[in-house]
Amino acid sequence: MTHLYEHYQMVRSQTERICAPLKVEDYVVQPIVDVSPPKWHLGHTTWFFENFILAAHYPGYQLYNPSFNFCFNSYYESQGPRVQRALRGNLTRPQIEEVYAYRQYVDQYMQRFFEQGLLTEALTYVLQIGINHEQQHQELLLTDLKYILGNNPLFPAYIEGKSLPEASPAKPANWLAITEGVYEVGHEGEEFCYDNEQGRHKVFLHAFQVQDRLVTNAEYMAFMEDGGYEQFQWWKAEGLDWVRNTGAQAPLYWFHEQGEWWQYTLYGLQKVNPDLPVTHINYYEADAFARWKGLRLPTEFEWEVACRQYAETPSPESNLQEKQNFMPIGEQQGMQFWGDAWEWTDSAYLPYPFYSPPEGALGEYNGKFMINQMVLRGGSCATPDSHIRSTYRNFFHADKQWQFTGIRLAQTL
Amino acid sequence: MTHLYEHYQMVRSQTERICAPLKVEDYVVQPIVDVSPPKWHLGHTTWFFENFILAAHYPGYQLYNPSFNFCFNSYYESQGPRVQRALRGNLTRPQIEEVYAYRQYVDQYMQRFFEQGLLTEALTYVLQIGINHEQQHQELLLTDLKYILGNNPLFPAYIEGKSLPEASPAKPANWLAITEGVYEVGHEGEEFCYDNEQGRHKVFLHAFQVQDRLVTNAEYMAFMEDGGYEQFQWWKAEGLDWVRNTGAQAPLYWFHEQGEWWQYTLYGLQKVNPDLPVTHINYYEADAFARWKGLRLPTEFEWEVACRQYAETPSPESNLQEKQNFMPIGEQQGMQFWGDAWEWTDSAYLPYPFYSPPEGALGEYNGKFMINQMVLRGGSCATPDSHIRSTYRNFFHADKQWQFTGIRLAQTL
Amino acid sequence: MTHLYEHYQMVRSQTERICAPLKVEDYVVQPIVDVSPPKWHLGHTTWFFENFILAAHYPGYQLYNPSFNFCFNSYYESQGPRVQRALRGNLTRPQIEEVYAYRQYVDQYMQRFFEQGLLTEALTYVLQIGINHEQQHQELLLTDLKYILGNNPLFPAYIEGKSLPEASPAKPANWLAITEGVYEVGHEGEEFCYDNEQGRHKVFLHAFQVQDRLVTNAEYMAFMEDGGYEQFQWWKAEGLDWVRNTGAQAPLYWFHEQGEWWQYTLYGLQKVNPDLPVTHINYYEADAFARWKGLRLPTEFEWEVACRQYAETPSPESNLQEKQNFMPIGEQQGMQFWGDAWEWTDSAYLPYPFYSPPEGALGEYNGKFMINQMVLRGGSCATPDSHIRSTYRNFFHADKQWQFTGIRLAQTL
Amino acid sequence: MTHLYEHYQMVRSQTERICAPLKVEDYVVQPIVDVSPPKWHLGHTTWFFENFILAAHYPGYQLYNPSFNFCFNSYYESQGPRVQRALRGNLTRPQIEEVYAYRQYVDQYMQRFFEQGLLTEALTYVLQIGINHEQQHQELLLTDLKYILGNNPLFPAYIEGKSLPEASPAKPANWLAITEGVYEVGHEGEEFCYDNEQGRHKVFLHAFQVQDRLVTNAEYMAFMEDGGYEQFQWWKAEGLDWVRNTGAQAPLYWFHEQGEWWQYTLYGLQKVNPDLPVTHINYYEADAFARWKGLRLPTEFEWEVACRQYAETPSPESNLQEKQNFMPIGEQQGMQFWGDAWEWTDSAYLPYPFYSPPEGALGEYNGKFMINQMVLRGGSCATPDSHIRSTYRNFFHADKQWQFTGIRLAQTL
Repeated sequence: MTHLYEHYQMVRSQTERICAPLKVEDYVVQPIVDVSPPKWHLGHTTWFFENFILAAHYPGYQLYNPSFNFCFNSYYESQGPRVQRALRGNLTRPQIEEVYAYRQYVDQYMQRFFEQGLLTEALTYVLQIGINHEQQHQELLLTDLKYILGNNPLFPAYIEGKSLPEASPAKPANWLAITEGVYEVGHEGEEFCYDNEQGRHKVFLHAFQVQDRLVTNAEYMAFMEDGGYEQFQWWKAEGLDWVRNTGAQAPLYWFHEQGEWWQYTLYGLQKVNPDLPVTHINYYEADAFARWKGLRLPTEFEWEVACRQYAETPSPESNLQEKQNFMPIGEQQGMQFWGDAWEWTDSAYLPYPFYSPPEGALGEYNGKFMINQMVLRGGSCATPDSHIRSTYRNFFHADKQWQFTGIRLAQTL
Repeated sequence: MTHLYEHYQMVRSQTERICAPLKVEDYVVQPIVDVSPPKWHLGHTTWFFENFILAAHYPGYQLYNPSFNFCFNSYYESQGPRVQRALRGNLTRPQIEEVYAYRQYVDQYMQRFFEQGLLTEALTYVLQIGINHEQQHQELLLTDLKYILGNNPLFPAYIEGKSLPEASPAKPANWLAITEGVYEVGHEGEEFCYDNEQGRHKVFLHAFQVQDRLVTNAEYMAFMEDGGYEQFQWWKAEGLDWVRNTGAQAPLYWFHEQGEWWQYTLYGLQKVNPDLPVTHINYYEADAFARWKGLRLPTEFEWEVACRQYAETPSPESNLQEKQNFMPIGEQQGMQFWGDAWEWTDSAYLPYPFYSPPEGALGEYNGKFMINQMVLRGGSCATPDSHIRSTYRNFFHADKQWQFTGIRLAQTL
Repeated sequence: MTHLYEHYQMVRSQTERICAPLKVEDYVVQPIVDVSPPKWHLGHTTWFFENFILAAHYPGYQLYNPSFNFCFNSYYESQGPRVQRALRGNLTRPQIEEVYAYRQYVDQYMQRFFEQGLLTEALTYVLQIGINHEQQHQELLLTDLKYILGNNPLFPAYIEGKSLPEASPAKPANWLAITEGVYEVGHEGEEFCYDNEQGRHKVFLHAFQVQDRLVTNAEYMAFMEDGGYEQFQWWKAEGLDWVRNTGAQAPLYWFHEQGEWWQYTLYGLQKVNPDLPVTHINYYEADAFARWKGLRLPTEFEWEVACRQYAETPSPESNLQEKQNFMPIGEQQGMQFWGDAWEWTDSAYLPYPFYSPPEGALGEYNGKFMINQMVLRGGSCATPDSHIRSTYRNFFHADKQWQFTGIRLAQTL
Repeated sequence: MTHLYEHYQMVRSQTERICAPLKVEDYVVQPIVDVSPPKWHLGHTTWFFENFILAAHYPGYQLYNPSFNFCFNSYYESQGPRVQRALRGNLTRPQIEEVYAYRQYVDQYMQRFFEQGLLTEALTYVLQIGINHEQQHQELLLTDLKYILGNNPLFPAYIEGKSLPEASPAKPANWLAITEGVYEVGHEGEEFCYDNEQGRHKVFLHAFQVQDRLVTNAEYMAFMEDGGYEQFQWWKAEGLDWVRNTGAQAPLYWFHEQGEWWQYTLYGLQKVNPDLPVTHINYYEADAFARWKGLRLPTEFEWEVACRQYAETPSPESNLQEKQNFMPIGEQQGMQFWGDAWEWTDSAYLPYPFYSPPEGALGEYNGKFMINQMVLRGGSCATPDSHIRSTYRNFFHADKQWQFTGIRLAQTL
């Protein structure tokens, strides 16, 4: 219990550390529907604890403000009406300072909740979801603030006064082979995981191999220079529509100026470094690139089996303080084995054979999104360490670019 | 070769038999983008033979009309510019009689092509695709003309002067179980199949069972009466959006009049028969219904394995003449094991492990659509017999209702 | 009365003469929402007589088909629900031959209605509106079938086997001046007019002049060649948005091929004749052209006063037979004083000071459209002669090009 | 000159006084495209002086930040590319404090510009436009911040801690008659006016009368209670579409709670006061209400003539300090003769006979918007006093409700 409370505290304060460089104005806007205002992330993660733990299980708890359920409920039909997703960016109130006060209020009651020993075993799982949920929003905070700042004509840096460190030259990619057979996938053990990872089960994999590193900017630029965005044969039909409707010619955040490619990073505008993994490409781009190479993306099952066999597990000693340093650096880090970027797989996001959503409101957490999205595996510089695990299933629509997404190549043997 | 030419002839004339009840006006329109004008189907299937066989491989062949490539190319980027899909319904010319003349012209040259022994082995596959392609469009002709007539305020019947025969009371559904193990899926043997079925490969299936018949109208009405369309908990999030945006309350073609449910069929408006399989529901509805029942849809692999183990194969003696009789009757037929309706599976349409698209233009036939669609298995009253096979992979977007789609329930054991 | 019945007959048969060159397919489609299917025009004009005269005032009249009210009511809220305007092009039934049968049925009853002396004085006005209404739809039939055929990749001609006659070289434009003063505008006398022309009233006009002919293709091409479509300064802000969103570079129906401008006419594709009046430009283009010339469009009041003072009235002897010949020729005729094209004015379509709509359903005829449209004056080659009068107020939205619209220049003195 | 500089200073500081109650968050967002972020108004009005006076006419002037031209140019095609209008609300930077610094920087240089006697006669007009332009944006600031706060689920008040003062019972409306004749309209004299008011000219008016006060909330509620929003006969066709598409049932900012109507005001949520003028209705609603009453809206010319004949001119002694007090109070003030609300007229926004836009960039100020908008006359509690004059032509699209708009009834005699 003590450990859990410390974990709660650490995660909560990490969220606020991520926001520390933001100006009040940055907290408010929603330039595209995918991006939520940072303020909303701060409120929504707090609402999660207030609504699912304190309001439900702390006797006599008074809501901080009953209107906040409307403001900060995301998509829980069971929890009542809420601001339309696309309108989150219109809410200038509650002010950011009130949202921080709301956090403090809920944190105080959570402390009393722990101190009074109200955390039953059944609630422990809810709490763990709440903590992991907040970590997911830490990642979204970073991707969303990057979008907000990176689409501003002034291109303000999130990390000011530093520039992107040098990267070592990328090594040639090596192949990691997996032999044909029945493998187990899905979560196992006592550690926390989401419902969508549960139900360890067997899959048959034909022999295949994956590369030991992600595709680099240099490799992707070769595709661009070869006319990849104009050649229909590499693209899914809906991908080609996306290219033509948007006029896309490069990854998100890339700008061509005077013969050179620049990209917006959390450090501000930087020259594209050819040795770093390409990021901010969508599934259509990842898939087209792979086809242009005569290869393909791995399935999520291939990925999980290969990762388990070959990956150096991120060291458990890494803690949040280190992560704080790591995180912004991550953007230029590159080339570690798994965890440089969320890797598009060729698997649609669907339920596992033994999948059943939890009872009650948390049943809305994952299952209802299992349609028309693709699974991503791995994790990125914006991902909390503890979320980088071999069974974690991230998922986005095929046209989304604003996450730190990358490409790992595979082929059937 | 003789056999193939006869097959060609039979299929070509079957297409025209399907259109026989249509009025000239019915051939022209496109009420939704999914529906193509019948005239366009007639021209497009003809263009397929002209373009991929005659123009490419018949020395000295003169195109019937060079503008027809623009009119009748569907989605082949490699074959040049074409009318936008959504604008097919604006083309009043060529007139329907000219399209029939076009068919005759191409059929004559195809006859000469056969007679002159120009059909090489390599071309045989292209020809077979052309024939199967035309059969696919026979099914689309039926679904599309049903939409055209069924959305007309006069509700004209396609089959006039008959009414829907009586159906026997639906039997209680039985469960068909499959034991855990590694199974092979995908096409095998010499018979024609599409590229997306190829690459026989292994999958691991956990023990499961499926029902031996489709869900009936009566069962589906119980879901409706229970408030199924209003209860968020059964629906995928995007499905709930679909319900709310469209106001859907029942399958497509259902109308509530004076306390009773009616549906538009190819015989015109008919009372909903409770014993027939429910059709014209989309994936969201199928999936919501299954969840309401505490069950799920099968995956395409489960379906294929169960079908191979349990289905009575449609008899090979059935021929096209019979099919002509069968086809309209099919709508009320019901309750045969596989082939009553296209069954939504819980599998996204994705490439098999050994999948590679054919070289050249026909590589655009299937592969580029492998994103954001769900697989359907089985076949319907509108499906040519020879297309009802255990490995056939049909696919549509999750919101589409205009095909003859149905529901088979499954559960993990 | 006899005269009126003859007029009725002449107008009804003229409508059918206009449609004579159409193929069945041409009757059905609606490529843009502004264009109604020719079949719909035939049915709607017939419904007008059936609904407002026979059903209301012929004792014992049986509706031809009660569903036709839904199919052929245009926008009369008072007359019950109706097919959405944008969906008119989906109605393959009633078939065209049934629509003609409907016309015959109604015409027979109208004959009996006349013969039985049921036409009261009060109904005479309704009948006259019905006849004039049908004439308006004759014009729409021509503009709509031009759009249907002119947007077909085969560019079929409406008038086959003839080509556009030569036009004489355009004369230099002369100015026609009007002195400052109070003038009367609006309809006067016993002749039929629409409610929107009624309420003869006074306006004050400052001295101005208008040109004695319309702007020619040659003059408009000079604007195009000068970069007129790229130069923001000539355009209303919404016009510039229209140019940028549509990529417009020329009038509707103009195509640039191998260094020359062609245009689709009712005779098929023809080289643009520099001496003819430019047509198929919208208000934004007309207004931009005038500004580029340092001039402006006249107001509708200036137009009416100038027309009354200077125009040779179209001779009353012209009859419908002649009109039939005239009408298609009209497209190349050109250069008569008033009636070459509908002339955009700089007046918004608003009620006159004494305007009040008629009681009942016909009150919906004109008044409810008096917002966000611009007045056009004159008449075109597609306009029935009797509709070319100095008080007639035509009106369209500023972005519409599909009518035979032209430009007359004006300036304040 | 001294006078002008003082005027400049007063207006500039008034803008900032209006913003004083705003929180930083309130400055940033754009909930609908019509509403600009308050921060943008502050920057744009400053850019106007910087761009058109300092950058153009102050030797050696350094732009505060060259990127600001992109951020703060509104619609001046001649002044280069700019952020799309709909994306203004995404710009979190420059921060509000930097925008205030920008204002201070420009104000300092403007002071030097005055002190150094650089204000030529030609520039005086530009300066006056700049000042009047800023005053127009003061009004927009109030209407836009009302929209921002009034669409927030917390309904924060702009003026806190006060409530709407009592209003006197509305007097019965009296008619003010104008006799038939030729009248002059348009600006005359030395005072500042916009180009669209210029060109004093003659109009003929038939005898008419207007009411001596605006329509009250009580009167409008009678329309609502009579089913006015459901009865098609009162509405323009496009108005009825608007009602049906939006589900509108009441003026903007009105909420029905427990049998009573409330409205959001700058004082927060308040019960609707039946004696105050109805506001925040669009042209469609104003026009429908008038028709329901058997009356009509006045034309802009009738309004101007009646105003000149009957209005008590706002006293010239009123100054900005008083205005500051008056302005928020204005919302409840009511019932003064002209200036309670912007009154929709039945005139489209079109050029006067002698209209010609100024040379250069300021030619884009008014003329290019003269299409598809309706003229409003009068002024509201949000309007600076000096903008309330009988010749002032305000203009908005017919569906806009977010301005302080009201209804004055008229009829032809």
